[in-house]
Order: sequence, then C-alpha cells, then structure tokens
Amino acid sequence: MTNDSAGEDAGTAEGGSPSARRDVPDDATVVYDLDDDCTIDDVAEGARYLVTVNGVVDYGVFVDVSDNVSGLVHESGLDGEYAVGDELVVGLTEIRENGDLAFEEVDPADNRVVSVEHEPEITVVDDLSRGETVTVEGELTQIKQTGGPTIFHVGDETGIVAAAAFEEAGVRAYPEAEIGDVARVTGEVGLHDGVKQLEVEDVTVLDGEKADAARERLDEARTERAGPESVEPLVEWPAFEKLHGDLEDLARLLRRTVLEGRPIRVRHHADGDGMCAAIPVQRALESFIQEVHADPDAGRHLLKRLPAKAPFYEMEDVTRDLNFALEGRARHGQQLPFLLMLDNGSTEEDTPAYRNLAHYDMPIAVVDHHHPDPEAVNPLLDAHVNPYLHDEDYSITTGMMCVELARMIDPGITDALRHVPAVAGVSDRSRADAMSDYVELAAQEGYDRDDLDDVGEALDYAAHFLRYSSGHSVVNDVLNVGCDDRDRHEELVDFLSSRAARDVDEQLDAVENHVEHETLESDAHLYRIDLDQWAHRFTYPAPGKTTGELHDTKVEETGDPVITIGYGPDFAVLRSDGVRLDIPQMVEELNEELPGAGVSGGGHLVVGSIKFVKGRREQVIDALVEKMGEAEIDEALSSTAAALDD
Amino acid sequence: MTNDSAGEDAGTAEGGSPSARRDVPDDATVVYDLDDDCTIDDVAEGARYLVTVNGVVDYGVFVDVSDNVSGLVHESGLDGEYAVGDELVVGLTEIRENGDLAFEEVDPADNRVVSVEHEPEITVVDDLSRGETVTVEGELTQIKQTGGPTIFHVGDETGIVAAAAFEEAGVRAYPEAEIGDVARVTGEVGLHDGVKQLEVEDVTVLDGEKADAARERLDEARTERAGPESVEPLVEWPAFEKLHGDLEDLARLLRRTVLEGRPIRVRHHADGDGMCAAIPVQRALESFIQEVHADPDAGRHLLKRLPAKAPFYEMEDVTRDLNFALEGRARHGQQLPFLLMLDNGSTEEDTPAYRNLAHYDMPIAVVDHHHPDPEAVNPLLDAHVNPYLHDEDYSITTGMMCVELARMIDPGITDALRHVPAVAGVSDRSRADAMSDYVELAAQEGYDRDDLDDVGEALDYAAHFLRYSSGHSVVNDVLNVGCDDRDRHEELVDFLSSRAARDVDEQLDAVENHVEHETLESDAHLYRIDLDQWAHRFTYPAPGKTTGELHDTKVEETGDPVITIGYGPDFAVLRSDGVRLDIPQMVEELNEELPGAGVSGGGHLVVGSIKFVKGRREQVIDALVEKMGEAEIDEALSSTAAALDD
Amino acid sequence: MTNDSAGEDAGTAEGGSPSARRDVPDDATVVYDLDDDCTIDDVAEGARYLVTVNGVVDYGVFVDVSDNVSGLVHESGLDGEYAVGDELVVGLTEIRENGDLAFEEVDPADNRVVSVEHEPEITVVDDLSRGETVTVEGELTQIKQTGGPTIFHVGDETGIVAAAAFEEAGVRAYPEAEIGDVARVTGEVGLHDGVKQLEVEDVTVLDGEKADAARERLDEARTERAGPESVEPLVEWPAFEKLHGDLEDLARLLRRTVLEGRPIRVRHHADGDGMCAAIPVQRALESFIQEVHADPDAGRHLLKRLPAKAPFYEMEDVTRDLNFALEGRARHGQQLPFLLMLDNGSTEEDTPAYRNLAHYDMPIAVVDHHHPDPEAVNPLLDAHVNPYLHDEDYSITTGMMCVELARMIDPGITDALRHVPAVAGVSDRSRADAMSDYVELAAQEGYDRDDLDDVGEALDYAAHFLRYSSGHSVVNDVLNVGCDDRDRHEELVDFLSSRAARDVDEQLDAVENHVEHETLESDAHLYRIDLDQWAHRFTYPAPGKTTGELHDTKVEETGDPVITIGYGPDFAVLRSDGVRLDIPQMVEELNEELPGAGVSGGGHLVVGSIKFVKGRREQVIDALVEKMGEAEIDEALSSTAAALDD
Repeated sequence: MTNDSAGEDAGTAEGGSPSARRDVPDDATVVYDLDDDCTIDDVAEGARYLVTVNGVVDYGVFVDVSDNVSGLVHESGLDGEYAVGDELVVGLTEIRENGDLAFEEVDPADNRVVSVEHEPEITVVDDLSRGETVTVEGELTQIKQTGGPTIFHVGDETGIVAAAAFEEAGVRAYPEAEIGDVARVTGEVGLHDGVKQLEVEDVTVLDGEKADAARERLDEARTERAGPESVEPLVEWPAFEKLHGDLEDLARLLRRTVLEGRPIRVRHHADGDGMCAAIPVQRALESFIQEVHADPDAGRHLLKRLPAKAPFYEMEDVTRDLNFALEGRARHGQQLPFLLMLDNGSTEEDTPAYRNLAHYDMPIAVVDHHHPDPEAVNPLLDAHVNPYLHDEDYSITTGMMCVELARMIDPGITDALRHVPAVAGVSDRSRADAMSDYVELAAQEGYDRDDLDDVGEALDYAAHFLRYSSGHSVVNDVLNVGCDDRDRHEELVDFLSSRAARDVDEQLDAVENHVEHETLESDAHLYRIDLDQWAHRFTYPAPGKTTGELHDTKVEETGDPVITIGYGPDFAVLRSDGVRLDIPQMVEELNEELPGAGVSGGGHLVVGSIKFVKGRREQVIDALVEKMGEAEIDEALSSTAAALDD
Repeated sequence: MTNDSAGEDAGTAEGGSPSARRDVPDDATVVYDLDDDCTIDDVAEGARYLVTVNGVVDYGVFVDVSDNVSGLVHESGLDGEYAVGDELVVGLTEIRENGDLAFEEVDPADNRVVSVEHEPEITVVDDLSRGETVTVEGELTQIKQTGGPTIFHVGDETGIVAAAAFEEAGVRAYPEAEIGDVARVTGEVGLHDGVKQLEVEDVTVLDGEKADAARERLDEARTERAGPESVEPLVEWPAFEKLHGDLEDLARLLRRTVLEGRPIRVRHHADGDGMCAAIPVQRALESFIQEVHADPDAGRHLLKRLPAKAPFYEMEDVTRDLNFALEGRARHGQQLPFLLMLDNGSTEEDTPAYRNLAHYDMPIAVVDHHHPDPEAVNPLLDAHVNPYLHDEDYSITTGMMCVELARMIDPGITDALRHVPAVAGVSDRSRADAMSDYVELAAQEGYDRDDLDDVGEALDYAAHFLRYSSGHSVVNDVLNVGCDDRDRHEELVDFLSSRAARDVDEQLDAVENHVEHETLESDAHLYRIDLDQWAHRFTYPAPGKTTGELHDTKVEETGDPVITIGYGPDFAVLRSDGVRLDIPQMVEELNEELPGAGVSGGGHLVVGSIKFVKGRREQVIDALVEKMGEAEIDEALSSTAAALDD
Repeated sequence: MTNDSAGEDAGTAEGGSPSARRDVPDDATVVYDLDDDCTIDDVAEGARYLVTVNGVVDYGVFVDVSDNVSGLVHESGLDGEYAVGDELVVGLTEIRENGDLAFEEVDPADNRVVSVEHEPEITVVDDLSRGETVTVEGELTQIKQTGGPTIFHVGDETGIVAAAAFEEAGVRAYPEAEIGDVARVTGEVGLHDGVKQLEVEDVTVLDGEKADAARERLDEARTERAGPESVEPLVEWPAFEKLHGDLEDLARLLRRTVLEGRPIRVRHHADGDGMCAAIPVQRALESFIQEVHADPDAGRHLLKRLPAKAPFYEMEDVTRDLNFALEGRARHGQQLPFLLMLDNGSTEEDTPAYRNLAHYDMPIAVVDHHHPDPEAVNPLLDAHVNPYLHDEDYSITTGMMCVELARMIDPGITDALRHVPAVAGVSDRSRADAMSDYVELAAQEGYDRDDLDDVGEALDYAAHFLRYSSGHSVVNDVLNVGCDDRDRHEELVDFLSSRAARDVDEQLDAVENHVEHETLESDAHLYRIDLDQWAHRFTYPAPGKTTGELHDTKVEETGDPVITIGYGPDFAVLRSDGVRLDIPQMVEELNEELPGAGVSGGGHLVVGSIKFVKGRREQVIDALVEKMGEAEIDEALSSTAAALDD
C-alpha cells in the first residue's frame, strides 16, 4: 500500500488498511477481503479481515488472509470451532517483529466487506535501475508489435520507457491493453541495444477509480511539466508582445505532446523564413524529446520535418502525411502525429485537409504570417499563431516567432539562435521596426548585413535543389544552427549564395531586353515579362523569384510606384510597390468576367500569383492590367513579404 | 528409421531393418552394413548385420554394429573363432528390455550386403519447440549471407523456418547447399528477436533416392496444401462461372508460390478497379504467408504491391522490377519473385518484357479485363485470367475477379470484401448483369450507390496524388479493407471524393466554353477539346479523365451517339458511345497515311488514346475525325470500361 | 614493454627498463618511477626504481614498485631504516624464477627520475581471437554514437575493427577520443551479429611522442599496403602508357583511403562509357574494403555509386552529396567521403562545387576524357587523370582507364573485365588505334562486334530508365561483370538492346521527313531537325542521342562533311563530321551578338549542346548556322566521342 495518491485520500482516525480507507464509509465496521496477491504491506494492525482456516492446532487455528499473508488466531481469541476451509472474521491485533501475525475473532455481524487489491510499490521511470524488478504506472503511449515481443511504451510523470512483453513470436501480448490506457507494468529493468527497457512480467490495465486517480495524477504532472520555460524575448518589441501568450500556449501544447509520446510532423514553407522557423523548433523539440524518453533515438522516430513547396497544404502532401501517419500506427503502433504547419497553413485553402485530419485524431497547429482566414481555419486548429490575428502583419516573420517558440521549449538553444530572426527578416524582406534590433543582435554574433543576405540567399538556393528532401545537415550548416564549424558555415554560405547570385544575374540578363514597360493612368510603372519566352526555365531562380528580383531592380531604378507581372503559359506572378492591388478581389472579378479562363490564385495587397488556362492568357493579362490601371496609389505599401509563389 | 515415406515403401514379409527394406530384392538374404552414426532405431530383430568384433570373452564375443550399437554373440551362437577386429555376419535374435542386443552368427554365404545410413528423427517445422535439438527436412527456400552467420530458410510440408549457420563472420556456411536443394538441417531451436530459429549444427544436402523421396513427399504435401479453398462466388453469375476454374488454378499457383518461399511482386493499374483487385489479393496472400512462415514479418519481406501508371508494362517498371529482383537475390539470397500483373498486362506490348523475365526464372501471371492478345502473351505466362478468353468482356472487372481470387487464397477475408466488387464495377462503369447483385451486396454492408461512386472517386484521387507509392494504409482506409474504423473511412472518402469532384468541376468549367461541336455524317455528335489550351495542366483530373468526364456529360445531355476527343500537343484521348471506332485499326491506317507523324497508341472499340509528334497534330486529328465520320453507328456500344489513358 | 617502436629507440649500454630508455640521457643515473598499472614486463634486472615501503619485517622491507609489482629489500641491502609508506630508491638485483624480486637500496643522490607508463602488449586487428582480452593500437576511423554504446572503429596496419564502449545509453563514451586520434583500445574480442568486435574496457588516446611513433608506424604500414598492385595493361598501347603513372597514383590514393576507413562516393556519367568506368572500380574497391574491414558489410556502408545525368557536377547532385556526407558524419560518425568523379568533372563548370567541398575536407579525384580545364580544376583536385593532360584525346575512354585502375586496386578481377574496354570504346565510338586490340580481347571472351554494340546500347537504355538509381544488379548483368550466368546476360542485353533499337528506329522514322537540308558554302551538308515538333518527347532516345543517331545516318549516307543540329524550344544539340566547329568559341560569340538570348553551353570541336531562351531560338539558330557556314573543313574530325548532352 505504497501508492501515494491513494494514501493522500486516507482519512479515518483509527489505523485501518490504508489502501482500503477511501472505499469505506465512516458509519460502517469494515471487514477487508484481501485479493490473493496481497502482501504484508496491505494489512495494518487494528483492521478486520475475512480469513480462511488453513490449519487447526491445539492452541488455535492458522488462517490465510491472502496467498502470502497468514497468521494465528490463538484459542484464547477464538469464539467458535473451525475446520480447515472455514471462513471467519478476525481483527489483526499485532504484527510481530518477526513478521508473524496475531488475530482474534470478531463478531461478523453488521460488518461491511470491502475488497482490497494488492497495491504494488510504484517506481517512476526516471528512477529505473538495471537489474531491479519494478512496477511502473503510466499511460501506454505506443504499442509496437514486432516479429518477436510486443513493445509497450509507458509514460509516467518523469519519462517514457519501453517494455517488452513476449507471448509468442509476433503475437500481441496483453491484447486488452490499448494506447491511451493507464496501466501498471511490472518487469525487470534490462538493456536492449544498450537502452533501458522493462522485461515485462505483467501488464495490468487500470480501470475505475484507480485509473481515474492515476490519470489525474499524470495529467497534473504533465500540465506542470509542459509549462513553457519563461524566456525574455531576444529584443524588446511591443508589436511582438501581443503574440507572446499565443506562443507560450503553443509551446505548452508541443511540450505536452512530447510528454504524451505522440509523434510530431512539421511541414514548413521551403524558403528562407520557413527554414528559419522550422530548424530552431526542430532542435528544441528534439532536445525535449531526449529529456523525456529513455531511448536516445526517440527524436528520430518521433519528429519529422518536411519542406512544402506550395504556400498551402497541397493534396500530395496531405495524402502522403496521412499515409505516413497510418503506416506509423500500423507498423510501429504509434499515435497519429501532431501536425505543425510553419510559415504555411493559415488560409481557407487548407481547411478541407484539416477537417479530414481532425477525424483521424491528428491535432494541428499553425504558426504563419501569411494573411489568414481565421473564421475558416481556427475552428479546426488546436493553435494558430499569426500576427494578423493581433492586427499586426507579415513584417513579424514566422522565423522571428519560431525562434521565441523554440526558446520556450528549450531555452538552452538561445545562444545558437541569436542571428536567426535577422536572417528570417532579411529573407522575407521584413520592414519591421525591430529589424534594426535583430540586425544588431546578429552583428554581435559576427553577421553583418551582407552576411545575412547571403545566408538567406543560400537557404533559398539550397531549398530549391533539395526539392522534397529536408536536407537536415546541409541546411543546419547554412543557417549555422548546430553547425560545429563557423568557417565551414561561411564557406558553404559563400558557395551557395554566390552561385545563387550568378544564376539570378544570368536570369536578369536574359529577360532584361524583353521587359515591356508602360505607364499606368495612376502614373505607376507597369513592367511585364513573358518568362516562358525570355527566361531560362526549370532552373533557379524560378518564376516567382525571377519576377521578384526584376521588380526590386525596377523599384530601385525608378523610385516610383511599380507593378511587375511575370507570366508563363498558364500563370502570372504579381508584385507591387506603392499600388494597392488586392489580388484576391481581382481573382474573383476575373473569374466572373472571363468564364472558362479558369482563373484561380491568391495573395494579398502587393504580392500574388494566379493561374489560368493557357488559351486565355492574353485576355487574363489584359484584364489584369486594366484593373491595375485603376488601382489606388498607396506609397506605404511594398511587396516586401515572402513571395507566395516560389 | 523414422522416416515415414521410407516406411511406406517397405514390403518384405520378415521383420527386417525397415529403412533398408526398399533396397532389398525379395530373392536375396540381406545382410545390413550400418553406417557409423546409426543408432538402435536403425536395427530390428530378425535382421542380419555385418559386425566387427570389439572384445573377446569366455562366453562369446562382443560386436559393434555401428559406433553406437553393440551386442553379444554368445559362444553358443558362434560358429568360428574371432579376434578383435574380425568381421562376421550375425542375426539379431533379441533386443532386450534393458537395450542389450543378442546376436548369433549366421552363414555369410549367398548374402547380399546392403548399406544402411542412419535416418534421423525428422521434426516438422510446425512442431518445433524451443530448446530442443531437432532435424528438419525440407527445401532450402532462401539463403541469406549476413555479415555474421548464413541464414538458411528451410521449408517442409508444414512451414518455413530460418536456420542460422555460423562458419566465420560473413563467410558462407555449407557452400554446397543451394536454393532449391532438399536438405536435413539439424540444430537447436532458439529464438532470434523472439522468432523461432534453428541454431545450425549440421546441414546435409540430400541426393539420389533420398532426395527424390523427400522431394516427392514435399511436392505431394505442397500440392495438397496449395489447393485453393472452396468458396461460393459472392453472387450467382453464369458469365463469371466460366472464369472460376482459371481463378482456382491461379489461387493454387499463388498458394504454392508462398509454400515455396518465393517472393511475390504485384503490379497493378493505379486506378479504382486496379486497387479493388490488388488490395484484396495482397491481404489474402499476407495472411497465407503468415500461416506458412515462422517469422511474422515474412509478409513484409516477401510481398510488394506497386501501382503502375500506364496500362502496359512500362520499361521503367520492368527495369526497376528486374533490378529489385536481382538485389533481393544478391542481398537477401531470395528466389527471384513471382510477378502478378493485375488489371494490366494482357497485351502484345507486354511480351518483350515477359520474354526477358522468363530467362530470369520469374514466373508471371496476369489477371486483366483489358482486351488481350492471347497468342502473344499466353505462351509467356504461367497463368492468364481474362474474361475475353471466355467470350466475355470488360464488364467483368479485374476487381470482381480478384475478390474471388483473394477468397480462394484466404476465405477468412470474405466479410471484409463484400462491398469491393461493386466499387470495382462502379469505378470501371461496368454494365454487367451482375452489377445489381453486387450493388445489393454492398447495400447490405451499408454502401448505397452514391457511397460506391464516392469510394471509386476517392481511390482514383488518392492514386493520382500517391504517384509511385503504394500508399498502403491510406488506400486500405479509402477502400475500407482492413480499416478499423468505419467513421474514419467515411470521412476520408468524403474528403477525397469531394475534393476530386471539386477539381473535376473546375476542370469542366474551364473547358466548357471551348469545346468544339460538329455533327458527323452518321449523325453522331463529335466534341473536341484542346486540353493544352483550355484545361488546367499537371493536375487532377489528368487529360484521360478530363475527356471521360466531358464525354459522359455530353452523352447524358444529348442521348445520341457521341464521340469525344481530348487532345494535347502530342496526344489525343478518344471516347465513344454508340459509334464503333476500332481504334487499333485507325492507328494502323494513320501510320500508313501519315508517315513521319509517329502515330502510336491503342485501345479498343470505344476507348483509346494515341500519341503523335507535335508538328503533325492537326493532320492527325483531321484524319482521325474523317475516319470517325465514316464509323458505323452501334448504339449498344458504350465507353464504360476503365479509361486506358489516365 | 612489448611495444616494438619504443624498443627500436633504445640505446643505453647497461640493461635498464627498455620502455624508458628512450627518455634517458646518457649522462644520468636513471631512476624509474613506475605508473600504478605497470607489470613485471615493465621492469628489468639492473635498473633502478623509486619504490614505496609496504611492510617492515625482521629481515628487511617489502616495497611496491607499482600496484602489481612488489619485492623485498633484504636488510643486508638496506642503508637506512624505513617505515610503511616511506619512499626509497632501489636497484633490482634479481628476478627469481618464481617471480620474486630482490632489490637493494642505492644512493638516491644525482639520480634522474624518469616516469614509466605501462606498455601493454599490442595485438593487431588481423590476429584478434574471440574471447581474448587484447589491446589494439590504431587510428580512430569512425565514431558512431548509437542509442546504446559508442562504437569506435580502430584501424591499424592490418585492418579495421569496431569496438563498443558503453557509458550510459546514448551517451558518448570517452568524449576525449576523436576521429583521427591514435589510441589504444583494450577489450575482450566478442561477436556482434556474428562479426568480431571489441567490448571496450578502456580507450586511451595517445599523445606526444607515443602518438607520433604510432602514427609514423601506421603511416609507413599504410603507405606500404596502399601501393597499387603491379599489373600489365590488357593491351600494349604507347598512348595509354603515358597515363599509367597517374592511374597508379590514383590507385594508391584510393587504397589508402580505404585503409583510412574513409567512405568513397562515386559519381559517374550515366552512359555506356561511364558505367564501364564505374562498375569495375566499384567492384575492385568493394573487394579491397572487404579485405581491410572485419565487418563484411563495410562495403555497403562505405561505398556509394551514383549516376549523374549531366556532363558536369550539377548543383542538385552537389547539394545532395554534401547533405549525405554531413548526415553520414552526424548519424554514423563517419569521416566525410572521398569524391571520385568518373567520365565527368574535368571542366571549369565543376570548380565552385569542388572549392566548397574542399572546405569540408572532402578529397576529390577525377578520371575523365572530356576536354579538361586543368588550370581551373587541378588546384582543387587530389588527382586528375585525363588523356588531354598528356596530349592524347577522348579516344582513350574513361572505361578503358578505369579497367586498368580497377585492376591496380584488385588484380583478381581482371578475368571479369577483359571485354569491358571494348564495350567502353564502342559506346563512345572511340577511334583509338588500340580499339582493334580491345575488340580482339573481347572476341576471345566470346563477344563479337555486334555483341559489343548491343551491350553498349543496353547500358544506355538501362541508364535512361533507371534515372537516379544506380541499378546495381541489373547493370552488372548487362555489363556481365559479376553476373553469374552468361545466358541471362545475353538475354538481358538482347532484350534491352532490341527495345532500344526499336525506339531509335521509331524516333528516326518520326523525324525523317522533317529534316531540313542545305549545303553550306563550304560544301558541307547541314541538317536541322526541330525535335520539339517532330520527335517523340520525354522518351528514349532523348534529344542528344536522337541527334547523334540522325547525324550518323547522314554521315553514312553522304560520305561528305556533315553538320547536324537537333533543336527544341530552348536548346540545340550539335554534331559535326569533317567540319571544325569550336563550339565554346561560338557560344562566346553568340552571347556577344545576341544579348538577352541567354546563350550558354559547351562541348568541343565536333560535339556540343547549347541553351538559350525560348523567345530567341530563331535568331540563335540562324546565327549558329551562319557561323557553321564559315567553319573550316577538316575531314579528320569526327563526332565520335560520347555525346555530352544525353
């Protein structure tokens, strides 16, 4: 009877059997009926027990309280005569030093019989010692059926450990035990490939009050431990402070997810800001997973980071993620993963996928600075952090937010991240007030403004050539997060960024003489370029970035309001500085005016991309230009946010 | 002498040494000469033995029959005088209760000496008990050289078990033993990762009569066990009954392949019907593999299912399959796989690949309902099931056939499959008589007609986005075969099918205003659409499906005979309802009329797709339309079979 | 004191402690102060020791020389009186047969105290016996942190073995030990998955003189063993002899790389010659790796062969290779790999990537027969073998060179390779003098000229369909290197080459009527073909090969000087026989004359390919043709080298 939570509920005055106390109303004389596997720990002097005679001698009868607990009722304390097998009610008068128990018979009338189960001593995961036989009480977080044993992962308030139960090769042991159950797992602590693991002797799924109590205890402990670390933001910035609470809530949610042993799948926009967001969070989560799991490889099994090419959750990605999730459940007995969308995922376009995943019990959180559709997405999300939800805008980039998020998850990585918000901001050309502070912070780490540009370019360039691969190691070296050699980082950035610059130059050289210019009624400049005809195709920079680079050149050249359109056979990329375009509105109008042109797309005031059918290109672009001619000048606007269309 | 098959051959009247009986002609007095390793089990009272004196005592001589078997010839039974080392011929007069043997000398004249090898007690794979040292006799089905031991897989009449033999790290043990040999493998039954495995003490490859006998026994047992389960078809359908025998033969072949430990590679058309065919067969085979192999992971190593985008066996697939097969042999010591083509593989186009695989000892079977070229393909196949071979047609879909095939392999999965034939039929728009029965069957499982449509669409949609991945888990959930949660299945189907419908609608909206219409001389309607100009490209639905959906709309709108052509820069997709096109014939004619247009392609009467060089598109389409104008009206024809061109 | 290298330095006249001798100047009376772990092996009669009294008896004092070495100073040999714990200086007068040591006190004045560390007996990797506890001295070549133990790979002069050290699950043992350190690893020789492995008891990193000595010994042994095998070239060929020394140097470098346990990554041109180069080298290296490593699987972990589609080191390949290298370091604790470029990598285009890899300590070697830019690439390479560096040309193909290279690495594979140079030569249409000898050599192996053509075609065809996969097994069968069945090889070649020929024929049929012909002023024929319009796209043969095949046909038809241009929307492939084109010069001129056409590309005198923007195609081709009209006739020139553009 060593279970503390049970003990805490105890309250009767006289010394009774502690584990039973909670079950006994004050107004009854309780007689305990002990389960066969109860031990001496389950009895207490003064309490009454229902016992069975196992031997009759001259001086009294020997009685069994359980398989392991027996004692003598001396003839002086016996009221009746009993034969072997008879039941009677006795009081425990004394537990002698040598362990012998002395009972005396009591009147069985008016007693209330209460069953007592054996309460084993519980050991917490953090205290497991090799060679000891222990009982762990926790939640089953993963149940993997191997060709040999069944591997249960048990998580309590201190950590998660694997427990191998062998029934028969490939046969599910303890089929009654399911993921999410609270159970007691008893076994010897051994080593499997050098990692602590329980060799299971017994798995008992708890139910009823016992389960409730354990679950409550676990829940409290996890809530406590999930609490994010309190960190001061890297820079003081009132606009950012509005997001602090949301980020803390998400940090708590992610830490809790780790404590629950659930896998996490990170999908992030495959550009500079997206990687500045994803890599810090990945590292922080890996570090916390390591803290929680006995298995040092758990991070690799439980966390996946994947780049996403499109600015929304593409069907191909959804299908693959879902299949991956289901395979993880089928083959490794994992819970379905938590989906974390970074620099991506705030829009209505994403909702059908979210709705489906919800039915699969896959929690979803989004950190994004693209213009969100909160009415559509928020009801489907477990968390949504976005500056627009607090009347801020894309100048607070996802990388800036995620650096703080990562620090809340694991403050120990702060030193590795000081330069990252500046890279994120430069990558997405943020004009935030705080940029100068971030740039200053990076300067203290030895990154001047050109270095930041180069890292951003190098990230973009690497992302382009890595395609669907996360490129874990090379990207870490480019961003210098977890890179062990500053010189190599610099050389790598130099290599990639100079190749990127060369490719951009070649592209701009190619299109230069073919850019068409006109002056709109609003006096804004309009530049158009047919990228299919005049740009190198299927290479870096892709149409989105090519248009952006051209646009930036023209903005700098003219100093006036500028719109740039880069178009291909069935798409156009739009950029504006100084003209309010409202691209979603334009798409809607084009769709009405040009039925059968199949216009779709999106963006916001100054950045966007649209698609149409090849045969209607001319009409679509003409109509678009006409609308742009009517668009309002607003010199404060600038297409400085991340291109949506790369 | 416990080998049963040997015992069955025995026939002499007097009680002789049973294992030797088969070798002894009736008219000879046989004297057995036992091998050194023979035991008491190898001798019998009444038989005669050639023995060697190992001791001389007052009362007789002690003689050795083998290293393990000795006895006394009492002086009363001795005719001559012998010294240690002398040979003589004796009869075994008595095997005493204590195991002592008593002999008497017999006249060695006119005897025929027969050698006797020790016959170990054979244990069948199913009866292996951990800790026992046993001898298993069976065929070597796989020989994998690891960095440590050599792993032999031995298959007998009851199952297949691995046996680890260690010579030196990475060095092939028993190099004389090869895949396909019949051998006796002796060793202790241990556990490797929880799976029973023999720790090899000896591997003896059998040869000569012993091998023949063992092989014959094995062959009989396998033939017996390979016999498909007798199942009643899910619906009564005379047309289908013609195929029943072919399916049974294939079920037998596949079960036998599993019993022989050979891997199986399933290639299936990546559409709704193809998946309705492949998934049931996959599950049934996995279940049978599990029954046969001691290793519960065997299914994962021995069975691969892969989608194929094209309606024939593409060079890319052939090259990869062959490389995979050879890697399996080189790295895992597997046999080359059995290739099972589903909803695919019946045409002449497939024969060069088949011819090549045949040289690699890769058996091939096809279940298909596309128009076959039996003269070309049948000689290269081990089995070919196709309704056209029985004067039936594509209305019997591959999914319908494969559900029955799967049930013959493992009747236990019947309950999971009742709705599948209806999905297959709806997917391929089968007009079979039996469709109403299948739909009724599905209705009993809770699928109404719309549900079936939705599942079919969802399968198509998932296949599109999974590309080359089998998408095992997500596809199982879509089809609800092996899905553990009906609600999730429904939600997933709803999600995918509604997205698919939305994408189809968008595509039809885009093309709607650009469809060109003309009335042919035959009064049939002809619709043409330039998909390159007017449809969204590189998305769902692809050109084949886009054309099909447009065609279906027009058929419904007009109620008349309709031909639809969807074309791109170098291809055209054709559909007809009510007009007999004979597309292969048209391709042949176009090739003659338009040299240098590079026309190729195929299909049948009402569905087809052709390719040509971009620069000849106009001429090809014009010539095609001219031919269509002359084509015969046949209102019974409908392009309801699966599109060949998705 | 069994360390030989230490012994070799010994030089004092009187018999002192050998391991200490090296540290002792001649003019001092040395007193040795032994470390606690020194043994009887570390002492010698006649030498003096600093000892500690551990017991005082009537007849003298017992003294400790180390924890393991004690002895008696008899009272007759004692000058002073000592208590337990006192230090004194003694001389070792006798080591008795029973192991007892007898000392006498000596005058401590004017002594020079020299510390002595225990020198364990060193066992070489090749002599490890299971069950023994040994000390291996070597370089740490790989340090892999698993979830359990830390695995050190130790390489000495005889081989490389793994050593598992367990500190705590997933915790780095001996964190002071790093890759490249020379260390002594002590442990018991056990088996891990059947492979010998040390169970570490201690790892001691050597430093100072001891490290220098060990490193020197190791270096000498490796230099000796890295020496390439002396092999006679397969054919006598003076032109080739010039390359022999370069190939030997590279063979030495590669063998040394293997001895150092560094991974090797082979990137080769994905055509016939490239595969004839890469496969022999792969097999030879695998064989040598097997010789060096205790783990028979080492070849699979340390050697990767990957095809490269482009004739230069593409950014996508660079990025992936670098990421792979860094992942190998992060996850497996491997050294960064040696990059071996075959039939690829000689040009200026490759230098930025090389420069970057150099900063990552990745050595690079190139064997190529494309026109090199030695000024640009040589400073970045560890080896560069190229016939142009010796005034020879592409007629010495990379396959020819690499067959000799492979034989220098492992002469045992000679028999498997005799036909390979001929295949390489035929694939790249080499007109080398030695071709007849190579063809004769192949004929002796049963390959006639048609067979060689077929193998070359089959390699090309397989490479096309394998895309980015190395297709290890299928390619081995096509080339018949390591294929176990000649019949299968022949059937496979027949299958692939006949399909290839069919596809080439179909392509030539398609383009035939659309080839435009004109006669240049120089009387050379010029043929042009618009491949986008008239050829099948995205299939075999691709534009480069299509142009080549067309060109060859025209050369044969006319017998005159011929130029052929195959062009698509944004590229052109060029071939010439009999006209000197100097394509790099033309590209340069076009770039000046047509700004904004984005012309790039390369090649040499008679083969090349260029890119441009789609909208400038007409001008580029016109300008190109004009230049070709002015180009000089040189009938000796022929576009027989490997197409650069496939």
